[in-house]
Amino acid sequence: MTYCVGLLLDKGLVMASDSRTNAGVDYISSYSKLHVVQPAPDRIFMLLAAGSLSTTQELLQRIQRDLDQAVNPQPSPYQQAPGVTLLNVNYMFEAATYIGQLSLAIQNDRSAVTRLSGASMEASFILGGQIAGQEPELFLIYPQGNFIHATDETPYFQIGESKYGKSVLDTIAAPGMSLDDGARMCLASLVGTARANLTVAPPFEVAIYPAGPLALAQRIKLEAESTELMTMHHAWESAIRLAFRSLPPFSWELAQAQAQMQQQPQQLPQMPPNEVAT
Amino acid sequence: MTYCVGLLLDKGLVMASDSRTNAGVDYISSYSKLHVVQPAPDRIFMLLAAGSLSTTQELLQRIQRDLDQAVNPQPSPYQQAPGVTLLNVNYMFEAATYIGQLSLAIQNDRSAVTRLSGASMEASFILGGQIAGQEPELFLIYPQGNFIHATDETPYFQIGESKYGKSVLDTIAAPGMSLDDGARMCLASLVGTARANLTVAPPFEVAIYPAGPLALAQRIKLEAESTELMTMHHAWESAIRLAFRSLPPFSWELAQAQAQMQQQPQQLPQMPPNEVAT
Repeated sequence: MTYCVGLLLDKGLVMASDSRTNAGVDYISSYSKLHVVQPAPDRIFMLLAAGSLSTTQELLQRIQRDLDQAVNPQPSPYQQAPGVTLLNVNYMFEAATYIGQLSLAIQNDRSAVTRLSGASMEASFILGGQIAGQEPELFLIYPQGNFIHATDETPYFQIGESKYGKSVLDTIAAPGMSLDDGARMCLASLVGTARANLTVAPPFEVAIYPAGPLALAQRIKLEAESTELMTMHHAWESAIRLAFRSLPPFSWELAQAQAQMQQQPQQLPQMPPNEVAT
Repeated sequence: MTYCVGLLLDKGLVMASDSRTNAGVDYISSYSKLHVVQPAPDRIFMLLAAGSLSTTQELLQRIQRDLDQAVNPQPSPYQQAPGVTLLNVNYMFEAATYIGQLSLAIQNDRSAVTRLSGASMEASFILGGQIAGQEPELFLIYPQGNFIHATDETPYFQIGESKYGKSVLDTIAAPGMSLDDGARMCLASLVGTARANLTVAPPFEVAIYPAGPLALAQRIKLEAESTELMTMHHAWESAIRLAFRSLPPFSWELAQAQAQMQQQPQQLPQMPPNEVAT
């Protein structure tokens, strides 16, 4: 399984993912699920992927082939007529359409045999990015190729094992938060998910994209044993324990505490009787 | 859907549940999912239920019929030969066996028609309780009738929408915690789940059972608008936001902060040149 989060904030985008892939429970490996494509200086695309690894990998290779062919055409027996690429789309939703259609085409190309075997070729994607002159946008692309985009009401998308880490996003996510806070929140959500579910695991990758410059501000990869991730993990768990300690008492606990306070004066050690000085 | 948690602590048991049931998204109602059965002073049973409401309700009615028949037999066309009841089981695992078999029998009685309609009659249960002279025990009873019991390594069971609220249990649950803390933790887990998922909602019910006296210490039902639940909800969300604020900064944030501190002396307002006193 997988867990990825994309955030659309006032100040830009945050994309975060784990790196665990598994086929059943006995073939577990690690692949990056955060992909950045910048075919020209006037546009940048970030893609998070969950689902079939073969569909995701072929999608990235087809995106690159389409870009190569646009610049330097080379006949290929597998290539369809050249057309849309990430270079010639004029809107982010056209990029989402293109990726959705590529994903569907790959699933259709492989579906006859994989369906017989019971394997699923489905994949979901979170696409973030910006084209010069437009605002940054964030899309959730479904396995069926259709998509929705993030708005202020719900500034995040999740794919994969999304339930474990949703509470913290619901509680904290707000479009006005800083990009660094957004990245920290995504990591807290990843840490909680990885603790609860074995199919989500480090390295955790995070990309921070501030609106405007068409370049990432930060891209980090936190390994399981890294000091930064261990510190984050322990800080989060300690803070949650502290948060728990701050919850209000039940009414009967208050009543017990009051009863004890009223009894206390009687429990004070009694003064010893005056002794005659010798 | 549903969300229930059962906790086995050193000091006793905590059972907690939401109360929402739904058939599709347009028939939403409220039923208690926390049931206490005490057929005799030497034994107490607490049952949490998730899954088919009709299976759960019939299970409770058959448990009661079996108990009635044991005391005051009345011929019934639906009744099987009298045998096991919650009065004559000698161990908690026998009670789990009995409930698992009742659940299976109800599912089998209804399966032919419900399967055709696509509806599922499956139900899962968490059974907690104590029989005099033995320790309290906690069981998770699967829809297939088999069961497992809680141990110190994993002192809790969840049924229903279990993923959203698992992180907080993983972080905080420990067999040594007090029963009141256990109840508070279950409520925090319920609050987070209800926020993330519409099919889980108040009233929240909690039963606290201290090992030994064969009687509940507390049983509460917190309505959505109750002061106690609202206070708990706000306290938990504020504490989570505070927990988030305590997370360590990224390396680049530290570097930026240091750079700013080094620049500060230069930014101090320069002393005005000495002026000649007039």
